[in-house]
Amino acid sequence: MEFFETVKNRRSIRSFTCDEILENEIKQLIDAARLAPSAGNVQPWNFIIVKNNETKHKLAKAALDQSFIEEAPVVIVVLADLNRSKLRYGNRGVNLYCIQDTAAATQNILLAAVALGLGACWVGAFQEDMVKIILKIPEDFKPVAIIPIGKPAGKVNMPQKRPIEEIIHYETFVK
Amino acid sequence: MEFFETVKNRRSIRSFTCDEILENEIKQLIDAARLAPSAGNVQPWNFIIVKNNETKHKLAKAALDQSFIEEAPVVIVVLADLNRSKLRYGNRGVNLYCIQDTAAATQNILLAAVALGLGACWVGAFQEDMVKIILKIPEDFKPVAIIPIGKPAGKVNMPQKRPIEEIIHYETFVK
Repeated sequence: MEFFETVKNRRSIRSFTCDEILENEIKQLIDAARLAPSAGNVQPWNFIIVKNNETKHKLAKAALDQSFIEEAPVVIVVLADLNRSKLRYGNRGVNLYCIQDTAAATQNILLAAVALGLGACWVGAFQEDMVKIILKIPEDFKPVAIIPIGKPAGKVNMPQKRPIEEIIHYETFVK
Repeated sequence: MEFFETVKNRRSIRSFTCDEILENEIKQLIDAARLAPSAGNVQPWNFIIVKNNETKHKLAKAALDQSFIEEAPVVIVVLADLNRSKLRYGNRGVNLYCIQDTAAATQNILLAAVALGLGACWVGAFQEDMVKIILKIPEDFKPVAIIPIGKPAGKVNMPQKRPIEEIIHYETFVK
């Protein structure tokens, strides 16, 4: 799919058909993720692929009962490797770059899903401690996104977006 | 350009030709940015378009003397609107969602640049306070990325990327 079309077609998909996601498709999603930029090319990311129904149920609970998470055939949990960024950049690495780098990778996954005819949703509201226990995540990794992915069960309208004139400034913020 | 080709062709471009960037191209970059997802559709982003040579010089200085910034015909500075996220989500909004949302928008700009035949670089290392003074940015906005953009002056090889096997896990992180 053409790039700008991909961006325009992306929606937050919270309803999925029963169709499975192929291993080849998962690989393409993670391949897009790992090609994201990162500060100093540190690549502070890991991805957990969850298909187990019980685990998805627990993740949905940890994500404030967002039950659509367990209805997706595949859930990708994105982790920030805090030590990788800290070793190179200290606090700015942990508090900023690590979050930005994994967000760029997450955005690549969301767009790649659209390009493959799939739908996904970036879930950010969840109990990090619970997710770490459920997925046996070591201390120095921070779960930063839960992404349920599947074939969209229906059409979703584009939510209202702020117009360009409201968010663009020229030369300085304040004139 | 096809989506996966766009992702594969993206490089951090630090050398630019003298060609100008059209206003129409800038609008397409910002249009891609504003279509990024954001927590609760809060869209906590603003973008400053800088073409003035003196301002670009000051930004390069604020970015630890990364002089390639001032060689780009256009520099986009991405701002996180901390209050927008804080009002809705408190500390998690300020420390996580605001950074992630603006990172997703930044990633859309980088990919859109590739799709338009342009090149860009995500600069994260800079003195935030200096950038705020240079661009007259209000207190509650945080500059999160400086993006020099132009026609690439040459080819750049893909930096080494971690292989999928190293970053992917199935069902749990630890087996």
